[in-house]
Amino acid sequence: MKLFENVDTKIFALGGLGEVGKNMYCFMTGDEIIITDVGITFPSGELPGVDYIIPDFTFLKKNEKKIKALIITHGHEDHIGGIPFLLQTVNVPAIYSPNQAVGLIQKKLEERGINYKTLYAYNEDTILKFKNMSVEFFRTTHSIPDSHGIVIHTPNGTIVTTGDFKFDLTPIGPIANLHKMAAIGEKGVSLLLSDSTNALNEGMSVSESKVDEALSSMISSHNGRIIIATFASNIYRLKHIVDTCKRNNRKIAIFGRSMENNIEISLKEGYIKHKEIFVTPEEANRLDGNKVCLLCTGSQGEPLAALSRIANGTHKQIKIQDDDLVIFSSSAIPGNALSISKTINKLYLQGVKVCTNTSISDVHTSGHGNKEELKLMLRLIKPKYFMPFHGEYRMLKSHADLAIECGIPKENTFIMENGDVLSLNKGKITKDKNVQAGDVYVDGSRIGEIGVAVMKERKVMSSDGIVIVTFNIKNNNLIGDVNITTRGFVQIQDNIELLKQIERVSQKTITINISKNNNLNELKLLLINELSEYIYNKTGRNPVILPIITNIN
Amino acid sequence: MKLFENVDTKIFALGGLGEVGKNMYCFMTGDEIIITDVGITFPSGELPGVDYIIPDFTFLKKNEKKIKALIITHGHEDHIGGIPFLLQTVNVPAIYSPNQAVGLIQKKLEERGINYKTLYAYNEDTILKFKNMSVEFFRTTHSIPDSHGIVIHTPNGTIVTTGDFKFDLTPIGPIANLHKMAAIGEKGVSLLLSDSTNALNEGMSVSESKVDEALSSMISSHNGRIIIATFASNIYRLKHIVDTCKRNNRKIAIFGRSMENNIEISLKEGYIKHKEIFVTPEEANRLDGNKVCLLCTGSQGEPLAALSRIANGTHKQIKIQDDDLVIFSSSAIPGNALSISKTINKLYLQGVKVCTNTSISDVHTSGHGNKEELKLMLRLIKPKYFMPFHGEYRMLKSHADLAIECGIPKENTFIMENGDVLSLNKGKITKDKNVQAGDVYVDGSRIGEIGVAVMKERKVMSSDGIVIVTFNIKNNNLIGDVNITTRGFVQIQDNIELLKQIERVSQKTITINISKNNNLNELKLLLINELSEYIYNKTGRNPVILPIITNIN
Repeated sequence: MKLFENVDTKIFALGGLGEVGKNMYCFMTGDEIIITDVGITFPSGELPGVDYIIPDFTFLKKNEKKIKALIITHGHEDHIGGIPFLLQTVNVPAIYSPNQAVGLIQKKLEERGINYKTLYAYNEDTILKFKNMSVEFFRTTHSIPDSHGIVIHTPNGTIVTTGDFKFDLTPIGPIANLHKMAAIGEKGVSLLLSDSTNALNEGMSVSESKVDEALSSMISSHNGRIIIATFASNIYRLKHIVDTCKRNNRKIAIFGRSMENNIEISLKEGYIKHKEIFVTPEEANRLDGNKVCLLCTGSQGEPLAALSRIANGTHKQIKIQDDDLVIFSSSAIPGNALSISKTINKLYLQGVKVCTNTSISDVHTSGHGNKEELKLMLRLIKPKYFMPFHGEYRMLKSHADLAIECGIPKENTFIMENGDVLSLNKGKITKDKNVQAGDVYVDGSRIGEIGVAVMKERKVMSSDGIVIVTFNIKNNNLIGDVNITTRGFVQIQDNIELLKQIERVSQKTITINISKNNNLNELKLLLINELSEYIYNKTGRNPVILPIITNIN
Repeated sequence: MKLFENVDTKIFALGGLGEVGKNMYCFMTGDEIIITDVGITFPSGELPGVDYIIPDFTFLKKNEKKIKALIITHGHEDHIGGIPFLLQTVNVPAIYSPNQAVGLIQKKLEERGINYKTLYAYNEDTILKFKNMSVEFFRTTHSIPDSHGIVIHTPNGTIVTTGDFKFDLTPIGPIANLHKMAAIGEKGVSLLLSDSTNALNEGMSVSESKVDEALSSMISSHNGRIIIATFASNIYRLKHIVDTCKRNNRKIAIFGRSMENNIEISLKEGYIKHKEIFVTPEEANRLDGNKVCLLCTGSQGEPLAALSRIANGTHKQIKIQDDDLVIFSSSAIPGNALSISKTINKLYLQGVKVCTNTSISDVHTSGHGNKEELKLMLRLIKPKYFMPFHGEYRMLKSHADLAIECGIPKENTFIMENGDVLSLNKGKITKDKNVQAGDVYVDGSRIGEIGVAVMKERKVMSSDGIVIVTFNIKNNNLIGDVNITTRGFVQIQDNIELLKQIERVSQKTITINISKNNNLNELKLLLINELSEYIYNKTGRNPVILPIITNIN
C-alpha cells in the first residue's frame, strides 16, 4: 500500500456522539469513504410534528464520488433507519449488511418505493477489499441476531468499530467470537470505537439466559392469559417467547405494526420458528386463558400502542380479564417512566398482576454491555487509541475513563462530537478540522424541509399559541377587513377587546406601510414586529404571529 | 509422537477435589508423570494436634521412577505447602515454579533443612519438553503475583489446568493473558481443569482496583492510627497498602510471623518497594496516630494472632487508642465467622471504628473468579471435556453446570473425587479405575505418623479424657503398685472411690493375665477392654485407656 503512504485516514461521526441514536460513522482514506451505519433518532416531546431525526448528509453530498460503501453492523433503527434518506440524497455504490438486517432494509426500501440493486449480505468470514482499505468482521452478541463488529484495515493502521454489543457468555444465539477479537487485537489495532450505551453501569449485564429462565417460569406456571409487552426489535426475546409458548401449548396473538413486521421477517428468515402458533385476536379470545399469550408493543407506555389501549379499556378486540398476567419484558427508555407507570397503575386498578424488570425477576436485560464487558473489549482489542461512541457525553466520558483504567494513556482517548475529525497517519492520531454535522428533521417523508426555525415555531406554538392575521390586498391597497384568528393563545370570549385591539393595530400597520413598499415579505415582517411587541406588552406572551396575505391582483 | 499412540494419558487428583486445599494433580502418559502443585490444608478444630494435612503420596512412592517434574502454579500454601513432605517421600527430578513462588519454596526448604538443587523458575514464555509430553504456560490474575495456568500437550490431546484465577480486567499487577488463552483454545483443547472456589457466586468478582480505591480513601482521610488485618499471602493487597501509606506519609509496623515473612520475601524480590517505610512497634508508638499504620495477621479472629491480642488488650506493644480505625481487608473463611465477630465486638466495646468488607466499602475481594469469569475461561479455552477442580462438591457441581450452560455436553463433564482417574486416549475421555488418595496428617514435622486411629483418640480425649495405667513388671510378675493417672476424665477429689476401683480392676486384670502370656501388647489390650467396660458401666464415658508398662527385667 506504498502509494498511499502520505494520505491520512480521517475518522468522524455524522451521528451517534453526544446522543443515543442516528449512528453514522465515516472512514475516509484518500478518495475513498466507507460509511458504517445510517441511523435515525425518534424525536422527544420537544419536537412536535417531527417523525424522525437523521444525520446531516451535507459532507457526503459534497464528497459523493468518494463514497465506496455503506456497511451495516445490525438491523436496529438507530443503525439502519436513515438508509432510505441517504439513498435519496447521494449515490451509494453498495450496501453490505448482515443477513437479518438485509430483510429489514429491503422492507424499508420497498415501503418508500426505492429500487436499490446493490444490497449485499455479508457474514463473519466475508472480506471486502477496496482500493485503499479492506474490511473484515467479527460476530458480536446484541439484542438482535447477526450483529457484527467491523475491522477496517487502512494504510495508516487498523481501526475497529464494535457496533452495539454485550458479552453474554450464555446467549440465546451464537456467542461473540472472542477468539477472532483476540487475534485481531494481537495483530495490533490503532483505534477502537466502542459502544458506550451502558458505560455508566457497573459489573456485567444479565445474561439473556437468565431472562429466559424468569420468563419461562412465568409462562409455564401462570394459569391465566399472559400479556407480554417488549421491544419489537429484540428478536431473541421474541424467539424465546415463541419457543416457550410452543412448549406450554399457548397460542400467540400479535398486536402492533412493528411487532407484526419483525415477526413476519423473522419467520421468513428462520430466526423464529413455529408459524402455526400465531392466531388472530378473535381466535385468541375463543381460547382458554392458559392457552393464550398476547404479544404487544407499548412497553414504553406509548398512548396509542396496543398495551396502553388494553389498559385503558379502549382496545377493540382485547378486554382485561381478572387472571391476566402482564409482563413488561423491557426497561424504561429515559423520559418514559411516567407514561409507563400510568399504564401499570391502570392495569393494577383493574386487578391484574403486573410484572416488571427488577432484581428479583429478570424479565429483561439490555443488549449493551456494562463496564466489565466494555473493559473486556478494550482488553481483547488492546488499541493504541480509543474513541468511545454510541452515547451521550456522560456515557462517552465514563467509557473513556474505563479505557484509561485499562492502560490507554489519557492523551490517546478522544471524546468527540458529531463532525469532529480524527486524522490517523502512519499509526499516529491527531485532531483535524471538523466537517458539517447536525440534526435534520424528517416530517413524514420530507427530508430536511423543516429546519431549526420551524421547530422553534412549533415549540413556541406549543406554549403560547398562534395569532393568524389574514387580509387581502389589491394594487397596494388593503381590501376588506383584517381577520384575526387565534389558536392556543387566549380564551376568545374573555378577550374580545384584546382581539379587536390586535385587529386595529394590524389594520393600522398595514395601511401605513402598504403603499410605501411593494415587498410583501417586508410588510409581513413589520406586522410581526408590531404585533409581537403589542401582544407581549398586553399579555406577557410570545405567540407565533402568522400574517397570511392574499394578493387579489 | 507416533510411538505413544496406544498409551493413554491418565489424569487424577491426589488432593483438591471435594475440598478447598492440598491441591495436587497428576498427569501420566506412559512412563512419565507430571505433577502440578503439592498443597497442604490447615486442619479444622476437629483434628486437635494436627498441624497440616497433606495428600497421600502412596501412588507416587510406588511409581517414583515415573515422576519427571513438579510444576507449581503459584505460591499459596494450598499449592506449595506440601513440597518438603513430597521431597522427603520421593525423588522429584525437577521443580518448575514461577519466580515469586521460588522465593517462598526456598524459604520453606531451608526451614526444614532440605537441600534441593533442581528448583527452576519459569516464566510465561518457558516451554518444557519431556519425552511424552510438553508444557507451556499462560499468565493469570490471582491474589498473589506470578500465577499461571499450565498447558500440557500429550500425544492424546491438550490438557489445560488453570491454577487459581480470576479475571480482574483492571488488576494491580499484570493482566491475565487473554490472547494466549484464546490462541490455546483456538488450537483445540481436550480437557480443561478449572478453579471452582467461587463457582457459587454470581456475576464478576470486584476488581482489586476498587479495593484499592476504598482503602486509599480511608488511609488518606482518617485522622488517627489505622490498623489493617489482611491475609499475609495477598501480596498485591500488601503492596497497595505500602504504596498508599507511602503517599500519605504513614509508617508501617508489621505484626505476625507470616506477615513478616511475606513482606521480607516481597521486598527482596521487588514485589513490594519502600523498605524505609517499615518501623518497629516501639517506633510506631512514638509517632502521631495519623503517621502510623499497623499491618497485622488475625483477620480470621485467630485467638493468638496480633489483632485478637490487640482487641483483648493483651498485646505487649500495642494498646487500642480512641481514634484507631480497624480495617478487616479480608473475608471470613467458613467456620471463622464467630471468632471474627467476637474480635469485632471487643474492638467496638473499646470505642474504635471498625470497617469490614461490605457492598458499601469494598475493602476486600477474592482472588478467585465468580461465575461470569469461570464462563469466560470456559469460552476462551473451549475444551471438549471439562473437570472442575479446586473446590468442595457443591462448588464442583455448580462449575460443571456452568460448563453445560456454556455448551459442553453433560456427559463430557466429570465431577471427580481425589483418586478418581480419567483416561484420555486419542482425544476421548473415559473413566478409569482409581488410585490411592486420602488425607495424611502431619504433626510438627512428622509425616503420616498420626493415622486415623490417633486422630480418633484425640477426638475421644477431647470429649472424655484419658485414663493412664502405669505399672512395672519383672519376669512376668507385677512389681509394686498399679498407678492410675487421669486427665480430662473426672474431678479427682469427687471420685476417689471410682479411681480406687479402677486401680483394683487393673491390678486384678494384670495379675490374672500376666502369667498366662508373655505378650505385653495382648496384656495391654485385655486391660483396655476390661477397663473400658468397667468405666463405661460406672460413668457412661469412654475415655482413652492408656496402659504404660515398664519391663524392669
